Amino acid sequence: MSHSITQKSALVVSAHSADFVWRAGGAIALHASQGYQVHIVCLSFGERGESAKLWRLGEMTEEKVKAKRREEAQAAAEILGADIEFFDMGDYPLRADKENLFRLADVYRRIQPHFVLTHSMQDPYNYDHPLASNLAQEARIIAQAEGYRPGEKVVAAPPVYCFEPHQPEQCNWKPDVLLDITSVWDKKYQAIQCMQGQEHLWEYYTRVALQRGVQAKRNIGITEARNITHAEGLQSIFPRVTENLS
Amino acid sequence: MSHSITQKSALVVSAHSADFVWRAGGAIALHASQGYQVHIVCLSFGERGESAKLWRLGEMTEEKVKAKRREEAQAAAEILGADIEFFDMGDYPLRADKENLFRLADVYRRIQPHFVLTHSMQDPYNYDHPLASNLAQEARIIAQAEGYRPGEKVVAAPPVYCFEPHQPEQCNWKPDVLLDITSVWDKKYQAIQCMQGQEHLWEYYTRVALQRGVQAKRNIGITEARNITHAEGLQSIFPRVTENLS
Amino acid sequence: MSHSITQKSALVVSAHSADFVWRAGGAIALHASQGYQVHIVCLSFGERGESAKLWRLGEMTEEKVKAKRREEAQAAAEILGADIEFFDMGDYPLRADKENLFRLADVYRRIQPHFVLTHSMQDPYNYDHPLASNLAQEARIIAQAEGYRPGEKVVAAPPVYCFEPHQPEQCNWKPDVLLDITSVWDKKYQAIQCMQGQEHLWEYYTRVALQRGVQAKRNIGITEARNITHAEGLQSIFPRVTENLS
Amino acid sequence: MSHSITQKSALVVSAHSADFVWRAGGAIALHASQGYQVHIVCLSFGERGESAKLWRLGEMTEEKVKAKRREEAQAAAEILGADIEFFDMGDYPLRADKENLFRLADVYRRIQPHFVLTHSMQDPYNYDHPLASNLAQEARIIAQAEGYRPGEKVVAAPPVYCFEPHQPEQCNWKPDVLLDITSVWDKKYQAIQCMQGQEHLWEYYTRVALQRGVQAKRNIGITEARNITHAEGLQSIFPRVTENLS
Amino acid sequence: MSHSITQKSALVVSAHSADFVWRAGGAIALHASQGYQVHIVCLSFGERGESAKLWRLGEMTEEKVKAKRREEAQAAAEILGADIEFFDMGDYPLRADKENLFRLADVYRRIQPHFVLTHSMQDPYNYDHPLASNLAQEARIIAQAEGYRPGEKVVAAPPVYCFEPHQPEQCNWKPDVLLDITSVWDKKYQAIQCMQGQEHLWEYYTRVALQRGVQAKRNIGITEARNITHAEGLQSIFPRVTENLS
Amino acid sequence: MSHSITQKSALVVSAHSADFVWRAGGAIALHASQGYQVHIVCLSFGERGESAKLWRLGEMTEEKVKAKRREEAQAAAEILGADIEFFDMGDYPLRADKENLFRLADVYRRIQPHFVLTHSMQDPYNYDHPLASNLAQEARIIAQAEGYRPGEKVVAAPPVYCFEPHQPEQCNWKPDVLLDITSVWDKKYQAIQCMQGQEHLWEYYTRVALQRGVQAKRNIGITEARNITHAEGLQSIFPRVTENLS
Repeated sequence: MSHSITQKSALVVSAHSADFVWRAGGAIALHASQGYQVHIVCLSFGERGESAKLWRLGEMTEEKVKAKRREEAQAAAEILGADIEFFDMGDYPLRADKENLFRLADVYRRIQPHFVLTHSMQDPYNYDHPLASNLAQEARIIAQAEGYRPGEKVVAAPPVYCFEPHQPEQCNWKPDVLLDITSVWDKKYQAIQCMQGQEHLWEYYTRVALQRGVQAKRNIGITEARNITHAEGLQSIFPRVTENLS
Repeated sequence: MSHSITQKSALVVSAHSADFVWRAGGAIALHASQGYQVHIVCLSFGERGESAKLWRLGEMTEEKVKAKRREEAQAAAEILGADIEFFDMGDYPLRADKENLFRLADVYRRIQPHFVLTHSMQDPYNYDHPLASNLAQEARIIAQAEGYRPGEKVVAAPPVYCFEPHQPEQCNWKPDVLLDITSVWDKKYQAIQCMQGQEHLWEYYTRVALQRGVQAKRNIGITEARNITHAEGLQSIFPRVTENLS
Repeated sequence: MSHSITQKSALVVSAHSADFVWRAGGAIALHASQGYQVHIVCLSFGERGESAKLWRLGEMTEEKVKAKRREEAQAAAEILGADIEFFDMGDYPLRADKENLFRLADVYRRIQPHFVLTHSMQDPYNYDHPLASNLAQEARIIAQAEGYRPGEKVVAAPPVYCFEPHQPEQCNWKPDVLLDITSVWDKKYQAIQCMQGQEHLWEYYTRVALQRGVQAKRNIGITEARNITHAEGLQSIFPRVTENLS
Repeated sequence: MSHSITQKSALVVSAHSADFVWRAGGAIALHASQGYQVHIVCLSFGERGESAKLWRLGEMTEEKVKAKRREEAQAAAEILGADIEFFDMGDYPLRADKENLFRLADVYRRIQPHFVLTHSMQDPYNYDHPLASNLAQEARIIAQAEGYRPGEKVVAAPPVYCFEPHQPEQCNWKPDVLLDITSVWDKKYQAIQCMQGQEHLWEYYTRVALQRGVQAKRNIGITEARNITHAEGLQSIFPRVTENLS
Repeated sequence: MSHSITQKSALVVSAHSADFVWRAGGAIALHASQGYQVHIVCLSFGERGESAKLWRLGEMTEEKVKAKRREEAQAAAEILGADIEFFDMGDYPLRADKENLFRLADVYRRIQPHFVLTHSMQDPYNYDHPLASNLAQEARIIAQAEGYRPGEKVVAAPPVYCFEPHQPEQCNWKPDVLLDITSVWDKKYQAIQCMQGQEHLWEYYTRVALQRGVQAKRNIGITEARNITHAEGLQSIFPRVTENLS
Repeated sequence: MSHSITQKSALVVSAHSADFVWRAGGAIALHASQGYQVHIVCLSFGERGESAKLWRLGEMTEEKVKAKRREEAQAAAEILGADIEFFDMGDYPLRADKENLFRLADVYRRIQPHFVLTHSMQDPYNYDHPLASNLAQEARIIAQAEGYRPGEKVVAAPPVYCFEPHQPEQCNWKPDVLLDITSVWDKKYQAIQCMQGQEHLWEYYTRVALQRGVQAKRNIGITEARNITHAEGLQSIFPRVTENLS
């Protein structure tokens, strides 16, 4: 989990242990392939709310479900080229106290991320998702404060992107970034296949990637002649600072 | 006005002949300094609505006001390093017919811009501004259509940015880009000083640049250690296509 | 229509000849009672779209409907204590060209209003209403411009208020002002009764006034101990400039 | 085009001659299969803006493109079980004068639709679409007015639904209705295949239908146990009047 | 509280013990009259915040106020034809812990509602209301999860409707459903009269019902020729799944 | 802290001990100069999040930082002419329990404010700010309830204004009031200079005041001929009740 002083890094905060795959697997694999250290925090395993298939197997306990989900998530992270860490905060409902907040702030301090990926700010289908997004954002602010664990190196102001929720319009989520993940799509789809308990979502998120790919092609300016087939949509929380507009 | 096949270019659509200076002077000078051909279209001279000081001189006619405003705008464009063209459509109210629309679409075809700058979509203080923005956007769409002047080279999908209106919150304008114009601020301020008829705005827009500069510094991530003192805010109309998030 | 130099004045721009009664009758009567010269411009008579009862009488022509509607509106204006003027631009659809725009700008110049009342910015039930609102706002901007009819006295920046549409939530209209019209309610109701062709609306708008009255009472601070029974809701377009917050 | 007094009917207003297929083909086929007379109005053929493939064939004229597009649209309408009518107003830009407005109002009067389908209110990629939507809505209002062609039967207040634009989030379009089109999907796909000039969209809109299908299943309450595989999203303009909430 | 396997059911979550009467009394009585088992959960009695008249009687304690409020609410529920249950969580402020959340999720499991009625998502006048709405929505999500009390029957995805707050526009509440309650208005008004402590609201909510009734008539399409005098407005949280659009 | 029965009063709720200076120093000084008793509550000292310069001095403890911040805030309050009180709730993160809520409600009861100033409802850069705003608003509601500490004098419905956040557009904050603070600017700037630890903000907020001053001049109607150079922007939460519109 250590990384050299010059390696770039990214932080992904996922409410449940599979969200990072469906929603950000391409962004993770892409930046890993660019040399970034990508670190994933799963706040819960989604053991209650997102493991229906496992529960239906019968003879199941929460511990067994969590173990299975952990295993799947670790396999997916490995394929994508990322580190993964589990906070095991529980789901349905996910709730965060100060201790969780500081634990995540400490991850920020350790990782010093160049950008952050997390959930949308609204989701009427899943209250854990906005809670995770708020936790990720508040932890970032705390990690920026000189007065939190004074003497430690504070973090800069890494951009935060909200990845795509399951029903985007219902979450008032609107992508302002389309990330070309064509070159890593095969890895994302491999990671998706680790999610044995949610096979019904494999093709759904394949289609999401194809749709965003078509849209990315529609929004390319002159300089970007590359062929895009798959993309991920992202919504920025903060304005981008730049010196060039094309 | 010709430019080599490989030179990058940008198009600025300004309702009145001074808007491009206050609102986009930094972006223009910056990209000119990066080798872009920047082309400015002034739809009107702002002869009625934005030349109060000239009218108060007395013995004034619309022709005289327009001549004076043209002169100022040309001087400013030259300082910023851009071409300038005047459509002379009249102001207060600005109105566009199909002929104006096609004339602007033809400019798009000629310039093949890598990005476009224009006004905000709303402005309760100035109805000419949203009209200019809509004209700029609709002309871009027409210039993209194979069936408009078939056989000509169509334009790609250049990003469109709305530059800062005079009272940003009242226009529901929200910048998602902060452009670092520190390196060209002196040029922008020189161009501002060409606007003899609107001296009351010189310091107002100097302060705008300083405030956006402070905000840009607050939004910088790890990799961008540069010192920013002046910036311009911009709001994107379309999602950005990219392969990197930091 | 002339008024002394020190008399305060107000301008009401009404799409159809009865709108000003339902939506602003209280504001008109109240300010008239405070000594304001209130001037009403009816852009059309609502002859097509808001005269169903008259048309159902049979043997009707557009001219007869307009004459009847003019008569009713004049009677109502008189009760409320206001001047009234008819632009006769036609309704369903209302359309405005530059000539109408300048005609209204000239009214602004003549009246020099201390505030302006007009329609909401959206109304999916009535496209004439937003058009009237936009016309009223654009004419105000033109009347402020030194270069429009140079030499004439320009207008200041009078606040503009959008009065209540028929189905407020559907119009995304949200009142930020509740005007206490208790003292003039009887006049408003008398004016309402002039609208013989729309009797079905009398009780509807009585209830609107009562509801807004209850809401006004719920929003009164310490200093305003008066008893309110009737009110009108208004939405401001521009920020209010003040020296006191209670 | 005549229909018996008791037959239900629907009106579809399409900016270009293929929009109705991608965006509302399922709704059309479904209601046709339920016995509705569905009437489609194509305001233009999309001859300039949506016929790139045809233009690239070479030796093309606007008339040839229009003829080809008409043919395709007629074939699609026939498969879906609907009538079709072409206003030939031109595209890129589409512009509407009073004559077009009245022509469409007359269609409303003739069809007396039980519901209306048209475009979204915003679309930064396609200015013709919101224009078509506004025309459809304003024509509906005029057709409701007693004073428009007095003596004719006015229309009731049919619900208006905005069908799905190409990049839904960018249009601030949010579906509040998911229409189950599973039973007619094969017809929709057949109609889609009539659009020879836009083959690149066939799979895109197949995936749209599948995604909306999955979403529809996620939003079904107890009473609706049916198996849904394909759906279309729609956004209502007006509130729904009902006597039952499940 | 038991109900046959085939009886339809509804759940109403009310922050204080009278909210369900003003805001949803018509919906409750209407569906009860249609054979639904309607179950009301009052999270608190409104003992602190909505019992001013009782407190002003003097010699009052919180227990006395709660007893009185319980009595009134039970009487109202009986008139409307519904079951009622009190969580007694306290008001001003209402606060929910996990235990309350699970208790409500268990009600969902037991009732298996075909639809849910609760408060608006925003209310600057009453923080308890949005809290109740969020609790109702999160409990629904938990009740849907296989991993919550595994083995129990999970709930489907019943639609959730937000009923009308006291000052609708200030809550950014916008009705997309107008429920015709004409046939049960007398019952609703009888239930309203049980609320002895809030007599000032009787006529207010009578007028609300009349206004919504007029609006419902304005939004009726061809097929719905019924005479509506009273209605309730509702805002949907989720998209509606349907096979028919008229 | 006592005040005569007839003295007007105001309450300012500040998340950290310097916010009231940058954001509301003018409003405080202005109303103090008009004879209001202005009472400031600082929920925390901003010891962790807004004292970077102090921490960088080295040899610092949280207690020392808080003492220094208290001193600066007291000096600023004195210059502005206001009382100040510290809740010492901690920052980064600020968290409020019922005890804090009741403590603040009790301040409302004691002060009986004619208006309230607090933070914006959103701030992605600072989660403590919206929390403070919500606490201030919920406490106001509790202080209005007869059933909270029965027998005490409840508060009326004082208007609540959100003062300007650091990056206004990013907070979706939109001023609807521009308060002329020209006459007290020197006092505000003196108070600003008390904030030794945040010298980098002095000129930033001077420019904010100048920009809002220019905007105030642009929004003045006829009757307000005064010369404005400095202003503060404010956003209202509730509608204003009035009897005059100019």
